[in-house]
Amino acid sequence: MKFTPKDENFVEKVRTSFSAQSVMKLIGAEITRIEAGAVDIELPYRKDLTQQNGFVHAGIITAIADTACGYAAFSLMPKNAEVLSVEFKVNLLSPAIGEKFLAEGRVLRAGKTLTIVQGNVFAVSENQQKHVATMLATLMCLQK
Amino acid sequence: MKFTPKDENFVEKVRTSFSAQSVMKLIGAEITRIEAGAVDIELPYRKDLTQQNGFVHAGIITAIADTACGYAAFSLMPKNAEVLSVEFKVNLLSPAIGEKFLAEGRVLRAGKTLTIVQGNVFAVSENQQKHVATMLATLMCLQK
Amino acid sequence: MKFTPKDENFVEKVRTSFSAQSVMKLIGAEITRIEAGAVDIELPYRKDLTQQNGFVHAGIITAIADTACGYAAFSLMPKNAEVLSVEFKVNLLSPAIGEKFLAEGRVLRAGKTLTIVQGNVFAVSENQQKHVATMLATLMCLQK
Amino acid sequence: MKFTPKDENFVEKVRTSFSAQSVMKLIGAEITRIEAGAVDIELPYRKDLTQQNGFVHAGIITAIADTACGYAAFSLMPKNAEVLSVEFKVNLLSPAIGEKFLAEGRVLRAGKTLTIVQGNVFAVSENQQKHVATMLATLMCLQK
Repeated sequence: MKFTPKDENFVEKVRTSFSAQSVMKLIGAEITRIEAGAVDIELPYRKDLTQQNGFVHAGIITAIADTACGYAAFSLMPKNAEVLSVEFKVNLLSPAIGEKFLAEGRVLRAGKTLTIVQGNVFAVSENQQKHVATMLATLMCLQK
Repeated sequence: MKFTPKDENFVEKVRTSFSAQSVMKLIGAEITRIEAGAVDIELPYRKDLTQQNGFVHAGIITAIADTACGYAAFSLMPKNAEVLSVEFKVNLLSPAIGEKFLAEGRVLRAGKTLTIVQGNVFAVSENQQKHVATMLATLMCLQK
Repeated sequence: MKFTPKDENFVEKVRTSFSAQSVMKLIGAEITRIEAGAVDIELPYRKDLTQQNGFVHAGIITAIADTACGYAAFSLMPKNAEVLSVEFKVNLLSPAIGEKFLAEGRVLRAGKTLTIVQGNVFAVSENQQKHVATMLATLMCLQK
Repeated sequence: MKFTPKDENFVEKVRTSFSAQSVMKLIGAEITRIEAGAVDIELPYRKDLTQQNGFVHAGIITAIADTACGYAAFSLMPKNAEVLSVEFKVNLLSPAIGEKFLAEGRVLRAGKTLTIVQGNVFAVSENQQKHVATMLATLMCLQK
């Protein structure tokens, strides 16, 4: 889908806000794509992010999916707006094991107040990609 | 609701598995209640767990809710079973700001294969409690 | 939870809107409770509402849960507002078999724009009640 | 995605089961595509399927999406299995107004016990298609 951003400085705006997410530094995530309605987050595997079986914890997978979806929505919002996660649903499709994880947030529908975004997380290892989770999220635009 | 555990050593089993969740150490979460069908997790506020506004990130709130729900389900599973998160839905009700966070996982229905659990997360500050998130989760029992 | 309605005529307003839901007449549903933040819908079992096993179809169970949640939210909205279902999640807990079905919508949090509501559907037979589904829904207030 | 059905008679099996869903006759829905992992349902607009604004009720939109997702999952299940809806989440993207509605169920991941399916519902009018709802569903395979 093709979207026209309302704020021409959306790339810088998203990057600045992402830098202020302390938890992304804690877990080692980076933002690797910022387009109108499309944001990617990458996270290398680390043992200290795992649950009892050595897979990355569903909450951490959710964290990168939510950040990707939130900034995909934010990229389309007007200047001086803030983005808020209203709710999301996550289906875990495969164990989160791999060298790194790629979370893709893609806007499905951008409304004035609410934006609906689809997130997908893939485990990436050398030349292989496995679908580990899918998210369906509702984000809200708060006008300041 | 009242449940009869199938494994009399469920408290020890849950505690041992929780200790193996490296990510809980990373974020500073502790398990504070283990009953049949009911598990609580507590997480003190830390600046390095936050998103861009200084609130605890939705992914971290989800992590403690998912762990509470997962172990509430696991507490009712037979010996030698493993628990797997199939999916969850989270509604974020208020900004996650407070001294600490309490995630409560309570089983709604325990089936042979699937268990449905409700999670609630509260921000706790001195004598005040605020409801910050609610989760509805499906967990699966894997017989080894 | 205790809520103060913003529109003193909320009972009449909800009843009038419910009467305009043609589909409720088609399936035979009635509204049996209208309080501030709490609405109940009842639906007698009918063979022509079922799926392939003779259970009431999940879409029909969702219809009465969504209507109960929607009007629970609407009961707290100001005069001249409209209510819109943004999204919902439903967990099906038991087969929908019984003499009649009771859907309860209960507001969890009423915001200015968004209201979060929990729905529960029970199969009722003589003196027995079985929990068949639980819903977590987001409703939106549209000011006209 | 490409799936190999385990039961070569899956088309007939799905068609027979769909015919036994009384509620589909009541609302006037038809099954218009049956492929391995992909099922479509069509529903002409009718005034007696609407909510208070004349849009098709979210529960009816959910009914056709759930049936499409359920049979998409069922198409990949072995002989003598039954399909059960575990849970679904629906985001309503636009008012359900149009000449007819097309629900597409597409399997994302088919496991031995659980199948994850994406559903999308479109309002179709002459040569125009509008996306009205998206569903993310978990279905279970019950071996008889």
